[in-house]
Amino acid sequence: RKTRVLFYAHYDIISAPLDRWHSDPFTVSGLNGYLYGRGVTDNKGPIMAVACAAADLLSRRALEIDLVLLIEGEEECGSSGFGETVQKHKIMLQNLFGDIDAILVSNSTWIAEDQPCITYGLRGVMHCALEITSNLLDLHSSIEGGAVAEPMIDMVKLLATLTDNHRQVQIPGFYDPVQPETEEEKQLYKLLSDVTQKQASSFVARWREPSLTVHTIEISGPKNATVIPGTVKSQVSLRIVPDQDLDTIVKSLCDYLSASFNELHSTNALQVCIAECSFQFFKVNVEHTADWWLGRLDDPWFNALESAVQEEWGSEPLHIREGGSIPSVPYLEKEFGCHALHLPMGQSLDQAHLPDERISLANLQKGKAVIGRFILKVH
Amino acid sequence: RKTRVLFYAHYDIISAPLDRWHSDPFTVSGLNGYLYGRGVTDNKGPIMAVACAAADLLSRRALEIDLVLLIEGEEECGSSGFGETVQKHKIMLQNLFGDIDAILVSNSTWIAEDQPCITYGLRGVMHCALEITSNLLDLHSSIEGGAVAEPMIDMVKLLATLTDNHRQVQIPGFYDPVQPETEEEKQLYKLLSDVTQKQASSFVARWREPSLTVHTIEISGPKNATVIPGTVKSQVSLRIVPDQDLDTIVKSLCDYLSASFNELHSTNALQVCIAECSFQFFKVNVEHTADWWLGRLDDPWFNALESAVQEEWGSEPLHIREGGSIPSVPYLEKEFGCHALHLPMGQSLDQAHLPDERISLANLQKGKAVIGRFILKVH
Repeated sequence: RKTRVLFYAHYDIISAPLDRWHSDPFTVSGLNGYLYGRGVTDNKGPIMAVACAAADLLSRRALEIDLVLLIEGEEECGSSGFGETVQKHKIMLQNLFGDIDAILVSNSTWIAEDQPCITYGLRGVMHCALEITSNLLDLHSSIEGGAVAEPMIDMVKLLATLTDNHRQVQIPGFYDPVQPETEEEKQLYKLLSDVTQKQASSFVARWREPSLTVHTIEISGPKNATVIPGTVKSQVSLRIVPDQDLDTIVKSLCDYLSASFNELHSTNALQVCIAECSFQFFKVNVEHTADWWLGRLDDPWFNALESAVQEEWGSEPLHIREGGSIPSVPYLEKEFGCHALHLPMGQSLDQAHLPDERISLANLQKGKAVIGRFILKVH
Repeated sequence: RKTRVLFYAHYDIISAPLDRWHSDPFTVSGLNGYLYGRGVTDNKGPIMAVACAAADLLSRRALEIDLVLLIEGEEECGSSGFGETVQKHKIMLQNLFGDIDAILVSNSTWIAEDQPCITYGLRGVMHCALEITSNLLDLHSSIEGGAVAEPMIDMVKLLATLTDNHRQVQIPGFYDPVQPETEEEKQLYKLLSDVTQKQASSFVARWREPSLTVHTIEISGPKNATVIPGTVKSQVSLRIVPDQDLDTIVKSLCDYLSASFNELHSTNALQVCIAECSFQFFKVNVEHTADWWLGRLDDPWFNALESAVQEEWGSEPLHIREGGSIPSVPYLEKEFGCHALHLPMGQSLDQAHLPDERISLANLQKGKAVIGRFILKVH
């Protein structure tokens, strides 16, 4: 039986401002060793590198593994329907190819410009929408100020309970499952600090610590300073890390918000959209969540990828993590019961999602060669 | 020397939605005993009633007082320049007419539909704009979440310190100067409660208690759930009542915000716009304020107005206050060193600032007659 590797990628591109491009964003063009165009680094360039690596091996009759390309078109907008589609075709896949042995992803960039990297971790995320309403129209503050419980005051006080004055999340038990920092990690962050001239603590905060952001607070009615808005909405997200459990956090967040809101003695109604649980005056619905992912550095697959990088680039790859989330990575690991590997191909200044998105031609060519070496190693 | 009364009013009208009118908002039209049109109740109708009352008396050679009409065009947008203009022409006014003995205003409505009222109090207001900035661009929460002090978190926590969980304002000493409720007031609120079928406590909260409203929280950048906004602004207002002192409250609010912000240990910068005082990382500039006003019920001028209403309508006027502010009323009292009187002419459903603004023709005619009687009484 041949080794089977599933390569996951996406061909969609976030809608980006088009007015600050120095070339036609919809036509790939080359300048000074870089390719420019929407999606060249995120994620079309890496797809081409993997496809060309496989095609090269195939034409030389050297492709000794089954390579399954799973390329979706909605990664940038939540991969809706992705799980259902994978499940629907999984039996067919397994009938055709048998079990998957490893998952390969190439969907981010190096930490800097010159040193090749392997990404071994992603944070998860839980998006949450809060709404507090008086079920009244917007009121005039000169007439009603003081006579009503204002949804905005409730919102501000509720959100304020989520963190302490040192920005620590106050949801009970939130930090308990966070893995302690190991000696190896400390060494790694020190090394990365030398490479990037950034403080080691900034990697800890971005990659291995959870965080909470309040993104927006929006009101009903005109935004002027005489109105008491009848309805106030807020978008909040939590970035989560190993070994925090999404379901546990959803539950404890709901409990905590409910308790905090009760303490406000408000006549308003709170609605929270995260996951299926509900309270009186406290409705909770499904919203977007994604689990964290942590690869294994002691895995033979990881070792194969690492040596492929080292042989091609002539230097050991840096081990890095990302603060962001790719929901499909932990999902596919669970679905196919095998490990994932993440090989970033472009450089830190590639401008994914931004004008003048680019990727180095050398990185693409070497990326293709790394993939070729990797395939030969794992067959 | 003749008695001199200054009538203060305004001819400007707030910009209002035009699409829900049942008649041409710019042409006065009559229906079922009401005049409809923009500004008919706020404040053009009352101006006409006063002018016609004086003209009638004059044509009968019975206008025995000097009536000065001071009618401005920017009341709805903060009366900017009003004070300077009054001061500039005050000497001329005094040379022409001598001192002013009383100020008359007719710039609000009854508490209900059927019973004439006299307004004897207005709340003051202090508008305040807060801005917290990281002096950074908007950041991506997947990359930077946890690594920066987020201005939105600071804003939410700062605003939350302004009130307790029972909506009591937490600025030290804020309630100390608030006049205790007298037995007469309690009787009055009970009477008004019977007339309006509203709880007595709602009049207390709207008229004689101060309040705090957070109107808006606005962010820099796109309003999406992956952005850490670099700058967050909020509009806050405080309604103030006798005997709170505006300058003292500005000072104690600044001190309180500064202390609360320091407790957040934030690297962000806070700017507050209220009045001229400044802190490090804590700038404060001028914004709109207006003092409260409380008329005297034991004043001969008030008695004259009250009997004029009683004789014309055949019933004692209700004594009411307003939750809103008319900055020019306390200002003119101070500037001319005399008392103000406030005779509301229209009814509670007159829809000032709204589509189908109207005023009852009977109220206008009787309002004119009340003014005529008042002038005859005070000459």
